[in-house]
Amino acid sequence: MICENIQNREGRLQFAGQDVSVLAREYGTPVYFLDAERIRRNCRVYKHAMNVGFERALPIFASKALCIKHVLAIVAQEGLGVDVVSAGELYMAKLAGVNMENIFFHGCSKSDEEIGYGVENGVGYFIVDGEDELLALARIAGEKGVRQKILLRLTPGIDPHTFEAVATGQLDSKFGVPIETGQAEAFLRLALSLPEIQVCGYHAHVGSQVFESQVFRDTADAMLAFIGSMRDKLGFVPQMLNLGGGYGVRYVESDPYLDIAWEISKVAGYIRRRCAQDKLQVPMILMEPGRSIVADAGLTVYTVEAVKAIPGSKNYLCVDGGMADNPRYALYGAAYTVLTPEKLNMPRDLVCTIGGHCCESGDMIQENVPMPRLSRGDLVAVLTTGAYNYSMASNYNNVPRPPIVMLDGSRSYVAVRRETYEDIAAREL
Amino acid sequence: MICENIQNREGRLQFAGQDVSVLAREYGTPVYFLDAERIRRNCRVYKHAMNVGFERALPIFASKALCIKHVLAIVAQEGLGVDVVSAGELYMAKLAGVNMENIFFHGCSKSDEEIGYGVENGVGYFIVDGEDELLALARIAGEKGVRQKILLRLTPGIDPHTFEAVATGQLDSKFGVPIETGQAEAFLRLALSLPEIQVCGYHAHVGSQVFESQVFRDTADAMLAFIGSMRDKLGFVPQMLNLGGGYGVRYVESDPYLDIAWEISKVAGYIRRRCAQDKLQVPMILMEPGRSIVADAGLTVYTVEAVKAIPGSKNYLCVDGGMADNPRYALYGAAYTVLTPEKLNMPRDLVCTIGGHCCESGDMIQENVPMPRLSRGDLVAVLTTGAYNYSMASNYNNVPRPPIVMLDGSRSYVAVRRETYEDIAAREL
Repeated sequence: MICENIQNREGRLQFAGQDVSVLAREYGTPVYFLDAERIRRNCRVYKHAMNVGFERALPIFASKALCIKHVLAIVAQEGLGVDVVSAGELYMAKLAGVNMENIFFHGCSKSDEEIGYGVENGVGYFIVDGEDELLALARIAGEKGVRQKILLRLTPGIDPHTFEAVATGQLDSKFGVPIETGQAEAFLRLALSLPEIQVCGYHAHVGSQVFESQVFRDTADAMLAFIGSMRDKLGFVPQMLNLGGGYGVRYVESDPYLDIAWEISKVAGYIRRRCAQDKLQVPMILMEPGRSIVADAGLTVYTVEAVKAIPGSKNYLCVDGGMADNPRYALYGAAYTVLTPEKLNMPRDLVCTIGGHCCESGDMIQENVPMPRLSRGDLVAVLTTGAYNYSMASNYNNVPRPPIVMLDGSRSYVAVRRETYEDIAAREL
Repeated sequence: MICENIQNREGRLQFAGQDVSVLAREYGTPVYFLDAERIRRNCRVYKHAMNVGFERALPIFASKALCIKHVLAIVAQEGLGVDVVSAGELYMAKLAGVNMENIFFHGCSKSDEEIGYGVENGVGYFIVDGEDELLALARIAGEKGVRQKILLRLTPGIDPHTFEAVATGQLDSKFGVPIETGQAEAFLRLALSLPEIQVCGYHAHVGSQVFESQVFRDTADAMLAFIGSMRDKLGFVPQMLNLGGGYGVRYVESDPYLDIAWEISKVAGYIRRRCAQDKLQVPMILMEPGRSIVADAGLTVYTVEAVKAIPGSKNYLCVDGGMADNPRYALYGAAYTVLTPEKLNMPRDLVCTIGGHCCESGDMIQENVPMPRLSRGDLVAVLTTGAYNYSMASNYNNVPRPPIVMLDGSRSYVAVRRETYEDIAAREL
């Protein structure tokens, strides 16, 4: 349950075992809280399930979900690899002390500078998205005297039944090279012909926020068929198969419940049977969870700044944050669970639209939420904000980005400090 | 015409009279260019038209469109006021040396800290959005011994026929206090009763990207009716009427052409006649252009990083920027005109989807654009990016924000420097 065990003895919201009201007064609002132990537990679910399911396996944290030093350090300690999609994310992984061998460098579009930065830093694997990148990488690796290990990003042609904006595995995608058009085979042949390149495996990522393991079985199916076909044609068998990320997260009670360990065991059973049929050794299996590692470890707390009732129309609550710290509602109409930390037990008898701080009509936290009657100064908490909130935050309206406060056991500490007006103006010349 | 006079003698794209190709090689990509003289000209259109149309008038730059020091300094030099919607924008206006008397402090939701910062800095006018803010402002102004001038933000109940996300003047809005429910009258009565507050006028903002002056006439109509009614009931006549912003900008050739000076003259004629009818002195008229001051002064230049043709499906170009520097396509599906600075005259015979640099399917520059055949390394320019691009930019994927390079006559200089990885990590503790 999303809202299980959320109330402390005083009847107030607790998160990571701490009193949200007390924390919010201490750190100010808007503020992101992160539950360190929850991140560790989420890592262990993947780590354990994949170790049980496969002989060789590695979960890789998709850092774009939340690319901050303290989080990268935790996931690395838990034995996960790190997926970066830019030189900026790679820089952060370096700061966090992540072993470069365990870095997987993604992205549909990499500049020469980014490729050079990755090669110089000894990134374990590039996930090469297409021919342009492959040729640039071979040239740059050659200049630096490196034989670069890579995975080829392929598009298996599967529709993940998810939002269009987070679907990536169908034929028509800016990512990867399609199998069904024959382009993947040509891509592999080219990669195998380049002396500066060592092809270690294939990668496919079908989509985000996926609740059906059927999608991953279909992906594995398509990829194993490709592996078999290329073995027969070219005699090439990759060591690694990366199935991408994408297990869904529950934002609201109506989202389906998912037992990720059980789902992985089903996918593992399927892959083992399928490999046995095809007389293939089971490759090392990689998965790339991002959202499901950090989303439910995050909580954002706001303060109500204005209450407006328009008779015959709507009730508005305006709070001190919104699309600048969490653009997912503006972008996708994303659903979230909203609670009132200090008024958990008051009747939620007023249907409200919770507006954000920005001077833009589309800046909403959620619309049509049953809420208790609140006043200026009351706290509002939004659950499950650990993924794609801070990482997508902007300075729209010159609003400083909130701090990230890590909660760990009985401790709390600032992992990312609150932005200042001086920070925002720091690049003005 | 959007694409008039865009080609120099070498057949390459020119902007603000300078060669975009040469500039892009000098400053690197992605990069925003700003035409300083165009900003000045846009300011003068409003300044002149409003001075001609009204006895007393002031155009106010809605700085949320692009709140940087060099732009604020230019608009202030041109004699415009500045509309800020947060303490962060006010901070930037201070940095730019804007006279605080000419600042209008907007926003649907202001914290005590923001209100205090505004009062302390001697902000000319608060645009008070509702009762909660009014009472907080009175308290804080009282504590600081200030009698604060304000405008009341009212909702005239007009539908501007624009995107939902940028429509603000209808009854159902998080902004302002509705006239038709009687709440505006109660709001005025309360404001007039507070000794710390001096009511100087009313404000209404109906929406953005408006192409029909009928909308402004309707707004003026509703507001003048309210002025007349409150004069009769309470004997109160405001000095100022602020009609908000919102004249549209042409992003693509199919957008209607608008002669803003002519439109303002029509609105002015209407207001003068209407005031004469109602035996009202024409109040000082304020308008708040943001987009129409800076949008067409902006140009973004990217470099192609990947070219992908999927037979039977789409052609993709991936470039080194996108939703991180311009989220308007991801947010609203906003249309833009795309040009190729060094290949202006090549046949545009390939329908392309231009994908962004971010690891997100929704990160697109534009879809289905006829383009010439480009390769990795070619330049792509997006026109009309001066408004709501830099100001809404994020560090999604830890991508550094591009610099803003000002073009002024034959000079070019960096107004905002390129963000670095160190900048992005500066708040990590």
